[in-house]
Amino acid sequence: MTRKVQTAVVGVSGYAGAELARLLLHHPRLKGAPPVFAGRVNERDAEHGGIPLVEIHPQLGDNKGGSNLRLEPFSWELLAERRVDVLFLATPHEQSREWVPRALEQGLRVIDLSGAWRLADAAHRAVYNFEDENTDQAIATQAQAVYGMPELHRELIAGARLVANPGCYATSIILALKPLVAAGLVDLDHGIVADSKSGVSGAGKAPTPKTHFMYAADNLSAYGVFNHRHTGELLEQVGIDAGQIVFTPHLLPIPRGILSTIYVQFKEPQIRASVAGIYESFFAGSPMVRFYSKTLPQIQYVVRTNYADIGFQLDASGRRAVIVSCLDNLLKGAAGQAVQNMNIVLGWDEPEGLQ
Amino acid sequence: MTRKVQTAVVGVSGYAGAELARLLLHHPRLKGAPPVFAGRVNERDAEHGGIPLVEIHPQLGDNKGGSNLRLEPFSWELLAERRVDVLFLATPHEQSREWVPRALEQGLRVIDLSGAWRLADAAHRAVYNFEDENTDQAIATQAQAVYGMPELHRELIAGARLVANPGCYATSIILALKPLVAAGLVDLDHGIVADSKSGVSGAGKAPTPKTHFMYAADNLSAYGVFNHRHTGELLEQVGIDAGQIVFTPHLLPIPRGILSTIYVQFKEPQIRASVAGIYESFFAGSPMVRFYSKTLPQIQYVVRTNYADIGFQLDASGRRAVIVSCLDNLLKGAAGQAVQNMNIVLGWDEPEGLQ
Amino acid sequence: MTRKVQTAVVGVSGYAGAELARLLLHHPRLKGAPPVFAGRVNERDAEHGGIPLVEIHPQLGDNKGGSNLRLEPFSWELLAERRVDVLFLATPHEQSREWVPRALEQGLRVIDLSGAWRLADAAHRAVYNFEDENTDQAIATQAQAVYGMPELHRELIAGARLVANPGCYATSIILALKPLVAAGLVDLDHGIVADSKSGVSGAGKAPTPKTHFMYAADNLSAYGVFNHRHTGELLEQVGIDAGQIVFTPHLLPIPRGILSTIYVQFKEPQIRASVAGIYESFFAGSPMVRFYSKTLPQIQYVVRTNYADIGFQLDASGRRAVIVSCLDNLLKGAAGQAVQNMNIVLGWDEPEGLQ
Amino acid sequence: MTRKVQTAVVGVSGYAGAELARLLLHHPRLKGAPPVFAGRVNERDAEHGGIPLVEIHPQLGDNKGGSNLRLEPFSWELLAERRVDVLFLATPHEQSREWVPRALEQGLRVIDLSGAWRLADAAHRAVYNFEDENTDQAIATQAQAVYGMPELHRELIAGARLVANPGCYATSIILALKPLVAAGLVDLDHGIVADSKSGVSGAGKAPTPKTHFMYAADNLSAYGVFNHRHTGELLEQVGIDAGQIVFTPHLLPIPRGILSTIYVQFKEPQIRASVAGIYESFFAGSPMVRFYSKTLPQIQYVVRTNYADIGFQLDASGRRAVIVSCLDNLLKGAAGQAVQNMNIVLGWDEPEGLQ
Repeated sequence: MTRKVQTAVVGVSGYAGAELARLLLHHPRLKGAPPVFAGRVNERDAEHGGIPLVEIHPQLGDNKGGSNLRLEPFSWELLAERRVDVLFLATPHEQSREWVPRALEQGLRVIDLSGAWRLADAAHRAVYNFEDENTDQAIATQAQAVYGMPELHRELIAGARLVANPGCYATSIILALKPLVAAGLVDLDHGIVADSKSGVSGAGKAPTPKTHFMYAADNLSAYGVFNHRHTGELLEQVGIDAGQIVFTPHLLPIPRGILSTIYVQFKEPQIRASVAGIYESFFAGSPMVRFYSKTLPQIQYVVRTNYADIGFQLDASGRRAVIVSCLDNLLKGAAGQAVQNMNIVLGWDEPEGLQ
Repeated sequence: MTRKVQTAVVGVSGYAGAELARLLLHHPRLKGAPPVFAGRVNERDAEHGGIPLVEIHPQLGDNKGGSNLRLEPFSWELLAERRVDVLFLATPHEQSREWVPRALEQGLRVIDLSGAWRLADAAHRAVYNFEDENTDQAIATQAQAVYGMPELHRELIAGARLVANPGCYATSIILALKPLVAAGLVDLDHGIVADSKSGVSGAGKAPTPKTHFMYAADNLSAYGVFNHRHTGELLEQVGIDAGQIVFTPHLLPIPRGILSTIYVQFKEPQIRASVAGIYESFFAGSPMVRFYSKTLPQIQYVVRTNYADIGFQLDASGRRAVIVSCLDNLLKGAAGQAVQNMNIVLGWDEPEGLQ
Repeated sequence: MTRKVQTAVVGVSGYAGAELARLLLHHPRLKGAPPVFAGRVNERDAEHGGIPLVEIHPQLGDNKGGSNLRLEPFSWELLAERRVDVLFLATPHEQSREWVPRALEQGLRVIDLSGAWRLADAAHRAVYNFEDENTDQAIATQAQAVYGMPELHRELIAGARLVANPGCYATSIILALKPLVAAGLVDLDHGIVADSKSGVSGAGKAPTPKTHFMYAADNLSAYGVFNHRHTGELLEQVGIDAGQIVFTPHLLPIPRGILSTIYVQFKEPQIRASVAGIYESFFAGSPMVRFYSKTLPQIQYVVRTNYADIGFQLDASGRRAVIVSCLDNLLKGAAGQAVQNMNIVLGWDEPEGLQ
Repeated sequence: MTRKVQTAVVGVSGYAGAELARLLLHHPRLKGAPPVFAGRVNERDAEHGGIPLVEIHPQLGDNKGGSNLRLEPFSWELLAERRVDVLFLATPHEQSREWVPRALEQGLRVIDLSGAWRLADAAHRAVYNFEDENTDQAIATQAQAVYGMPELHRELIAGARLVANPGCYATSIILALKPLVAAGLVDLDHGIVADSKSGVSGAGKAPTPKTHFMYAADNLSAYGVFNHRHTGELLEQVGIDAGQIVFTPHLLPIPRGILSTIYVQFKEPQIRASVAGIYESFFAGSPMVRFYSKTLPQIQYVVRTNYADIGFQLDASGRRAVIVSCLDNLLKGAAGQAVQNMNIVLGWDEPEGLQ
């Protein structure tokens, strides 16, 4: 490749967008080729070439109190002029649903961080209430989408034009369950419990009563019981149906990090070594998953990394296991996994720019 | 008194309002006479007699998951019908400025938690940009207002029809400075530094970018440097001018509590005992101030109490002192001091219902 | 009763002890009769009559920067001299195991906050490794012990000489499960999952690597998987065996509060109203439990109260329920429940001094 | 240089040590040449070649759940065998005081993170109570020590054999004051106030009553008033005497980050632009300082970076300024500045491996 790959980010102003910006700005393959940041910009700022990135995210500034990077007014022409190769969308679900077909037409490779294209089954997608203007196009686009979890779909991602980057809760649960379910160990009729806890950044940057410091701090609350929209991803990717899992998210009083505690029953008694072996072999080629052979993962060890950490405990009977799965919701649960997917799409080392 | 005193609260939905409700509901003198809670209520809720208080503040519910208390649609007639004696206003400054004259006309005794009537000097008041419709009436009302800091104005409060409840920062600083300044110890020409830090509840209940958990948590920031609107209260009550103090507030990542670190220079060298003696004698009759003779106060010891805690350190020269002053911004800094003022107005024991 | 009841507290220096002191000092029935605080005191402090309580817990001081209350050197004679009626032990398990028989011999009524006497089944008790010097006496004492959960054993508590105050996790789970299990709704063969999260005060006051701010803050970790010692209490009180429940505690980055998320399967499909009815009728005479008929409880609404809050969600099939149970681990989970038990033992109103 | 520089770290188990390990492991100039980690190791672990680093700091593990890096038993021979060029000491002050002369004799270049060699003036050093066995050697060693603040002593550091890495509080205050004092603006006779607030990692990893989550969380406390041992550094580096500054540190309820609010009086009225100009020119060649020309820095923008951020406000008179200075106490306040110093010592780009 004679010229550097050119990336673009739409939706840089949110938390995942900020992490994505940080990762791309420091990515060793993209040195000297900063992303195009594009989005809604009012007229006055547009006259000045957009909004300085450091005004939106002061922590991204260098020692000169800023840099020349700007959030520019979005247009498809801008992406064409800048010869963008890979477009990251950290946009609302509806906007991603609308924009992706156009982006693909324009020849862009798209990594979409929203929930717009993650679900193959229309019934699961219903939770988002999408109103596709061009149904045929939507169906065709959906057919091209690859669920961007490298540990499950590495080869498909490599050839994908559209990567649907997974949800944060979904990532933490799927990675913990898939190896055991795929190995046929889990008694699915008995059912699975996934009790998940997430930091506040998962609730987004909009100030709301629930993201107010006084609501979240010194508190814990369950929400979305029996109806959280990441459930569809779980079902499709793990290969189970809705009656086989109960998933309960909780809001933790911390900025970032997810811990899922997952309860399964095995069809037959297991010994620790065999369960550990299944995980180790499943993740043998996966540099961004750390399997804990002795202890259990904790949020503090994954925060600000792109790792998913997984460990488990088996009861004396060998029939019941508690699996603990941790990740940083903004990294392996969003921007980090998106960069991991970009690396695969472009044939680079999977963990590049992520350590 | 043959019947119980009847109180009313306007503005119960905020943090100070909630604390006020809790204090009044458990006040030993008001057993069986809960406050009238009045405010803006939409038509549909009004048809049901208002909004159940536990829907606004679940923590105020009893074991039946609620109580009969409701936020009722405000009207002056309502206050008259219920024979309200004491009206607490936990309302925006502008609203208090507009309503208080009317309340006084109706014969109510008013304890106003806003900044509307705290400042005698029009120049200090300018920071609030009040636009009084009836200037004469405003002047007359202002003349009646007593600054509701019992440790300074206990006797005036006892006879007041309008108590202007102090600001939270101001309370923490005035209580620390007034004894030493009144005793003539402080070199005012040298100037005073008041470096204050407050928990997030001080920023109010409205969800804003600065009250978002992600902004406040794991952070500290200074704001309002050289222009915080509590400055006027400091000047008037301590009896100094603007050139003699620098006051800097900071936003702490905790729900509640203020700590002010105050730096003064003495005209003459002092020994510890004489400075301590000044504090002890100043606060001898003040049950809600705790003077620390050995150690320094901390926020953890005042949170959820109505105490203001004060301590100091003297340097080897005896010329410089660091004073530390702590209180709970929602209690001694707002609702607790309001109840303390009510107790004085009604001739009850000052700390009643506050311990 | 012509004279006031005299209480004593051993173990006031811990977190539960501090809350117990606060509650007893403000209890309306104990006005003017503060508890005797007794414990280990070094010789020098003993000469001064013990250690001032405010040196141990500054927040308990009044406006004079302290009070006359002291932690006195413990002796059985001291309790006799002061004519103590009710002895609270907030002591280590082993110490309670050793001391209670002696206290009963001396005619004291004992409320023990440790795990020493909670478990009727010796197999469950094994987790504590007690080495009883006098086995017969221990058996006899155990036989007298009543598990101090008023909502289950109100009448037995009223006549008890020894109340074994429940564990904090156990309280949150038993209160949520007992009504449904007692009503025969729960499919016990399917098994129950109890995923619990507790604030750091539950880990005790001793500085350890796990109570260090840097370990606990911004973190979440599971611990004691399949072997937490509150499990025995759950089994005995709910009436299930170890194979029928998995209980996983987690350490939350907050000072206090427990939230348990509990997953059950029903034998037959249920409608919401019938499940709600079971809870409401079970807790009809229990003033310290709040059943949430519409929403789910959160930690913020129970902290610093003695309430246990319970709510649930049913899935569309009516077969699966998620129950959320919250309490303050230092109050309903320790000191508050101990006072509630004292109230019952002494024939006072159950919530007295707890609101 | 044909072979890679070899570094060694003694004291990796603390917080600053962990950050140092992370920085050195990812430093682009040290790829493939991980540091030697040496320290106290018990006999049994020593037989296994030391303690795996991931057992001490799980967050440093790669995807294989660990790496081959170990904490090896310290000996001077080990450092010689591994041909160590640069030795980092993150050891207690006394240990650094004792070891550094020996390390220099062995030809190592030393970057010492303790307070052992920062102070040229014996009177200032008295606060550490060092008992030098060989006084002449200590004097000679002290004479070689360069205070490792690149923004002040870049050229001296380049040639230093012993870099005394500055204290965290001292760094935040010196960087804010030095430019203005050096320019002669500040009225030193009037005196300076430095009110500093630090996260808990500054208090070290040892579990103590003050680092307990229950003490630090939801709290703020002042400590070390008039006697914090970073004061000597301030005086020597800024060039003032003890009577000219009051420095008060506070313990913030956050893991990391320092914010210092500094109050100065100018000899003559200033305009904003001239003060800004002094800062900008002072830091023109300093890539790790960000001057804020419009807003004030906050802790959130420096945490996990090696930047020191500085901004100020001037009052209307132009005579008084409030300066706000922020940094991450473990990076620019410790490990990051140490790596910055290493870069200078070795002739590399100053910010290399720090962005």
